[in-house]
Amino acid sequence: MSVVNDVMKEINTVMELVDESQLDDAMNLITKDKRIFVIGAGRSGFQAKGFAMRLMHIGYQDYVMGETITPSIAKGDVWVAISGSGTTKSIVADTEAAKKLGLQVIALTSEINSPLAKLADKVIIVPGATKTGSGVKSIQLLSTLFDQTVHITLDTLCLKLARRDDTSNQDALNEHVNVE
Amino acid sequence: MSVVNDVMKEINTVMELVDESQLDDAMNLITKDKRIFVIGAGRSGFQAKGFAMRLMHIGYQDYVMGETITPSIAKGDVWVAISGSGTTKSIVADTEAAKKLGLQVIALTSEINSPLAKLADKVIIVPGATKTGSGVKSIQLLSTLFDQTVHITLDTLCLKLARRDDTSNQDALNEHVNVE
Amino acid sequence: MSVVNDVMKEINTVMELVDESQLDDAMNLITKDKRIFVIGAGRSGFQAKGFAMRLMHIGYQDYVMGETITPSIAKGDVWVAISGSGTTKSIVADTEAAKKLGLQVIALTSEINSPLAKLADKVIIVPGATKTGSGVKSIQLLSTLFDQTVHITLDTLCLKLARRDDTSNQDALNEHVNVE
Amino acid sequence: MSVVNDVMKEINTVMELVDESQLDDAMNLITKDKRIFVIGAGRSGFQAKGFAMRLMHIGYQDYVMGETITPSIAKGDVWVAISGSGTTKSIVADTEAAKKLGLQVIALTSEINSPLAKLADKVIIVPGATKTGSGVKSIQLLSTLFDQTVHITLDTLCLKLARRDDTSNQDALNEHVNVE
Repeated sequence: MSVVNDVMKEINTVMELVDESQLDDAMNLITKDKRIFVIGAGRSGFQAKGFAMRLMHIGYQDYVMGETITPSIAKGDVWVAISGSGTTKSIVADTEAAKKLGLQVIALTSEINSPLAKLADKVIIVPGATKTGSGVKSIQLLSTLFDQTVHITLDTLCLKLARRDDTSNQDALNEHVNVE
Repeated sequence: MSVVNDVMKEINTVMELVDESQLDDAMNLITKDKRIFVIGAGRSGFQAKGFAMRLMHIGYQDYVMGETITPSIAKGDVWVAISGSGTTKSIVADTEAAKKLGLQVIALTSEINSPLAKLADKVIIVPGATKTGSGVKSIQLLSTLFDQTVHITLDTLCLKLARRDDTSNQDALNEHVNVE
Repeated sequence: MSVVNDVMKEINTVMELVDESQLDDAMNLITKDKRIFVIGAGRSGFQAKGFAMRLMHIGYQDYVMGETITPSIAKGDVWVAISGSGTTKSIVADTEAAKKLGLQVIALTSEINSPLAKLADKVIIVPGATKTGSGVKSIQLLSTLFDQTVHITLDTLCLKLARRDDTSNQDALNEHVNVE
Repeated sequence: MSVVNDVMKEINTVMELVDESQLDDAMNLITKDKRIFVIGAGRSGFQAKGFAMRLMHIGYQDYVMGETITPSIAKGDVWVAISGSGTTKSIVADTEAAKKLGLQVIALTSEINSPLAKLADKVIIVPGATKTGSGVKSIQLLSTLFDQTVHITLDTLCLKLARRDDTSNQDALNEHVNVE
């Protein structure tokens, strides 16, 4: 049997455990009159950036923590934090700071009992294996299964947002960088 | 029916079309005595970076084009380029330059007839929909389906490399950044 | 004599050659009703990012080419390109594309006869030595003298913009990222 | 009188206060058999990256914290941290972690009594004004004067390293990325 098949089995298992009503619930916080700030570290950070890029394509004003033009945050903003284990120190510390400043927090993590999940107003559980051992067991390295499934989960969230807002593929293409 | 299900159907369809022998073939170019240079733009670029990070975890010497400490390239190096459409101008131009300098090229694209595929020594076809219309049709935005499936394909490649090299999960964890 | 002194002599020599009226002239293009897109490669790219960050602090809407949330560009936007030699391939190609799309171009370069300078509506000449041999000769490595003096020139531009707009240090501090 | 002149006066004042013997002292820790890890946030972070890029050009094995291929750190490595105020939370926390892991710490800051300076084995004081009010007073915004002078200080350090190692400009050019 192929390794691709083994990997796909794991991904299908995790995605069946993602509760789509958690996405619906989190979506209510994401509106065009708010600024969305996205944070993640390491490979989760790359998925955070992919999400942020797509949010921009579909008409949201959003920022990635740590990038050049990211401004100060304030009450009224939304904070989306991604950490498989829910324990990444810098993510938890910055989310605490965001919470204190009055931001609404959406957390994506595999671990409902993690410090990150506890800080969140809305939690989206993506139970892929992480490097600290949380989530569905995996043959893949470290937090790979979490990275893959949080990628798919965030893309699904974007698709649902686009449908809610009546944003077409062409609208998104118009926003896509045209010099690269 | 849930949107998650619809998305997973698409991903499963594409991954069944990925030819694992192309991975086996490309893997032969990736060895620990060579430097691996990875390039991608936009959301494909984030998957390129995720791949590069994991390659580092499993003991390879690799670099991401455009990052701070990326040195000059030379004959004997390997070049891994990712572009769904296979037409992204900067990726094609830089891959041509790499080819001229004598690098061996691995391309990941959805389009076998693309300029990028034609430059490659080894092609891995990941036929997810892209924003130029290549690949398996998708309900998702722009190149989302390509991004998702190239992510899974590259992770599978890493898993196969780790198995070939007898690199354990603990070995990978030891290389993972320990201050974050 | 100290190396610091030798370096400072070079920087003073170059900065005396910077024509402040070129800054005044370029400033007229930079207004709060326009989007500013900034591009640079390598060490010039870091100065481009520092400039972009400061523009944000003083109330401009600006983007760095290659970052996550950078949208498509269009007529009415302003393009600021930095290249010591004025020949960096990707910078020249993207500036050509921006020009064709109708953007107004400000170029910072040491070389008035370079391809980049020729594309510009407004040129700011910063004649620090570059790795291709243009500019005031230097004992420092590669384009170091250009990097240093373009850094100072762009900061001066920001100071002049802040004064023109009556933006205070406290205003800038309020925009500075408050979670880091 | 021109604004460029006013800015240059400030820079000259600060650079006269930089004690070159502190550079000589710190240089002793930077050798080719060690890995150098560089960290900075915001605009200081861009200067940190410029330094890291140049270190690579002159033959050092170095990494930027937060970039894709940065591995785990360990005793025997060198840690270079940049913070004008010496109080940036994430920089101080990560430097503490690095110290505990046994790394030797070089700090660049304007404030000798800062938490960052206290963690350092070698301190290089660059007394440019910062956004918290330390350093030589400035007409420029926030920590601009620190950013400028730490840039020049780090470039001077690189020049001194290249001379010590007998590394030529041509050697550096050979390492410079050749596809961009």
